[in-house]
Amino acid sequence: MIAQLRALLRPDQILTETVDLIPYGFDGTAMLKEKANAVVFPETTEEVAAIVKLAHKEKTPIVTRGSGTGLSGGSIPVKNGIVLCLVKMNRILEIDTKNLTLTAEAGTITQAIDDAAAAEGLIYPPDPGSMKISTIGGNVANNSGGLRGLKYGVTRNYVMGMEVVLPNGDIAWLGNKCVKDVAGYSLKDLFIGSEGTLGIVTKVLLRLLPRPEARKTILATFNDIEDAAQTVSDIIAAKIIPCTLEFLDQTTIRCVEDFAKIGLPTEAKALLLMESDGPASAVEEEAQKMQAIAQSNRALSLRVAANSEEAVQLATARRSAFSALARIRPTTILEDVTVPRSKLAATVRFIESVAQKHGLKIANFGHMGDGNLHPTFLTNERDGEEIERVEKAMHEIFEYTIAAGGTITGEHGVGLAKKGHLPDQFADASYPLLQSIKRSLDPEQLLNPGKLFDL
Amino acid sequence: MIAQLRALLRPDQILTETVDLIPYGFDGTAMLKEKANAVVFPETTEEVAAIVKLAHKEKTPIVTRGSGTGLSGGSIPVKNGIVLCLVKMNRILEIDTKNLTLTAEAGTITQAIDDAAAAEGLIYPPDPGSMKISTIGGNVANNSGGLRGLKYGVTRNYVMGMEVVLPNGDIAWLGNKCVKDVAGYSLKDLFIGSEGTLGIVTKVLLRLLPRPEARKTILATFNDIEDAAQTVSDIIAAKIIPCTLEFLDQTTIRCVEDFAKIGLPTEAKALLLMESDGPASAVEEEAQKMQAIAQSNRALSLRVAANSEEAVQLATARRSAFSALARIRPTTILEDVTVPRSKLAATVRFIESVAQKHGLKIANFGHMGDGNLHPTFLTNERDGEEIERVEKAMHEIFEYTIAAGGTITGEHGVGLAKKGHLPDQFADASYPLLQSIKRSLDPEQLLNPGKLFDL
Repeated sequence: MIAQLRALLRPDQILTETVDLIPYGFDGTAMLKEKANAVVFPETTEEVAAIVKLAHKEKTPIVTRGSGTGLSGGSIPVKNGIVLCLVKMNRILEIDTKNLTLTAEAGTITQAIDDAAAAEGLIYPPDPGSMKISTIGGNVANNSGGLRGLKYGVTRNYVMGMEVVLPNGDIAWLGNKCVKDVAGYSLKDLFIGSEGTLGIVTKVLLRLLPRPEARKTILATFNDIEDAAQTVSDIIAAKIIPCTLEFLDQTTIRCVEDFAKIGLPTEAKALLLMESDGPASAVEEEAQKMQAIAQSNRALSLRVAANSEEAVQLATARRSAFSALARIRPTTILEDVTVPRSKLAATVRFIESVAQKHGLKIANFGHMGDGNLHPTFLTNERDGEEIERVEKAMHEIFEYTIAAGGTITGEHGVGLAKKGHLPDQFADASYPLLQSIKRSLDPEQLLNPGKLFDL
Repeated sequence: MIAQLRALLRPDQILTETVDLIPYGFDGTAMLKEKANAVVFPETTEEVAAIVKLAHKEKTPIVTRGSGTGLSGGSIPVKNGIVLCLVKMNRILEIDTKNLTLTAEAGTITQAIDDAAAAEGLIYPPDPGSMKISTIGGNVANNSGGLRGLKYGVTRNYVMGMEVVLPNGDIAWLGNKCVKDVAGYSLKDLFIGSEGTLGIVTKVLLRLLPRPEARKTILATFNDIEDAAQTVSDIIAAKIIPCTLEFLDQTTIRCVEDFAKIGLPTEAKALLLMESDGPASAVEEEAQKMQAIAQSNRALSLRVAANSEEAVQLATARRSAFSALARIRPTTILEDVTVPRSKLAATVRFIESVAQKHGLKIANFGHMGDGNLHPTFLTNERDGEEIERVEKAMHEIFEYTIAAGGTITGEHGVGLAKKGHLPDQFADASYPLLQSIKRSLDPEQLLNPGKLFDL
């Protein structure tokens, strides 16, 4: 197989030495690793197709990978398989300002896409926490969310089309530049979020929006998580859908302050990052209403960014949460449960009680406006007994989430990390449908086998 | 089969007499009809499941139907099959103002859903032309668009979940009230727009939005279609995404005026209905910019609705287009091609040239902001020679659309009417994927067989 790969690619497009393979053996997920037989770096769709055809002939499994920032083990190699890494396919191919679209190769960094849009007065709204390093292909494979999701939605809402290499090596285009299209099943919607198990996304066609004229960033702190949660509920009840409503708990506030030194009040029990964007007049009005609502919920402090530099600084409080928490203990397990908005405060309380019950340190932050929490276990994978407690706690949190009408993953995906919990999420006749679709589109189980579910 | 159906349902829930079956033998599509063996009217999901289990046992095909307003023959009966009509499942089950969701049975009229949302200060944005009579289940099955699609998107963007009865009679829930959920493939997105071929949608869980504070409706007329198209392009280029940008050509203007008497200038070659909604201050600003852009493109007349009654009256010009045109000749064939916005003016010109070439009357109107045109053939199905010319013309329009990167159907679906053209739309390795999915989820081909494609 490797000899045949060498015939397809230049030597610098293939890694096979153990020492070179190690960095491609894990992603952003704690406690998961595996060794591939080779890592390949195709530079064109045709090269991807040739590799897949070869793998199809040889029955060699392929795991597609971007920057490896995944948080559910979706890009962990498969034993005796190859890793197909798309980071060299990173060109922005077109910005079509008439149709407000952008076409890019799958390995393009998400931040580069929004930067290119910004240069035309446009915006690519989905902004996952990892956007400075994650690739758009990875975002599409996981249907990534982000901090602007409350108002703008997630990656799915901006994918108009994609080029995919199918498990047999055929190349197909799904979707087009039409803002409306109901011809046939929406294959692109099936492939978005399929975590590399149905096809390899090689190019994406994205929808852009006019860049909002104005933006206002507000940082509010509270003595009580309840007050922060009520602020979010009251904002929605006031018929305001701001672009961002992000939350940090006290542990996270303290870690972030220690890490980023932005002057956060470390005595606060909760922090809300609120952003409004849109036409200047509307933003001003919305921001004032949100401040009044925070105040009526006993905000401890309210800080409004005076300019865009300060806004970026305030947003840093939220954006650096994961990095800041990761410094505390050897192992950081970032969870991703999501509940209907109305169940959020109760879910935060439940997670706190679970941490206490099992004697664990669980920091909590997340997209409060979306009901998407990131309870973060600060632990040590070498302490087997503690990890057992972590697993018990996690199981309890998942059970609670599902019972609350929520989901085990709001934006990180199932991958390997959550595949054991997927049957609980799909506890009716829908679970076999997932397997049927995989069997029908990838009958030989060549693409990312063993992720999401077993067959 | 019918005797067994009678054992499951009350007598008034089954029609079997030829005279009773006739109205269920066609939908809103010209020239298509077929007779079913029976029409059944289940009132609960359990009844639907029981009927499907019976049909599964007896290998009897089922065609699901709402109000029968479809425009691609998707709900035309299948020979020796039964029609499962959901209009008696029409209850709104819940409005959850905390999570901004609404749950309704599939047979609920779409207008009733928006009315219920409005009573809570909320809006269900998708507003298909047929919304006063079409059912939400039909909207989901076809992923219906509407007049507010430019800003708000289509039905898919508002479906958070659904209850479906699968081809074997099992009941499954797809989706939930979480605004973010990436657990497993997005089955709901596969079922949206699948035209009743994969499962029977019995309940829908919809996302609502805060109802916009203000709305401004403007009607502009032009001497030239080009000027109307340029107005649309200039509005988008000015980074304005209004809620509505709808277009009528001269034939349609004249028919509408004759039908609805709203004082339209019948000498105009094109009419644009423009609507802005949102916060009052932003709407005022946006409406003024749109008027200025229309003026700079030589608008013949500009009429701004002074109040909501006048706004409704102006919108009537667009909403009554199909009904008005349907009075002209015996047969009205409403087409639904969609192109990238930038190709719109050229496509309108091409359709005019095709009409001239084949000596046909084709009125044109549609969602100009979405690139979604409804070229409407005014013809007579009893005139075989003319119908041949209609088919030639239609084929040329589809070919042109596909070459322009467009789609043969923007919002009406494939059904029977366009199934012959679907392979041209999916001209690569993607077409067999559609068939694989159908085969894997409905192996016995019981649900709406022969629609979209043959197997």
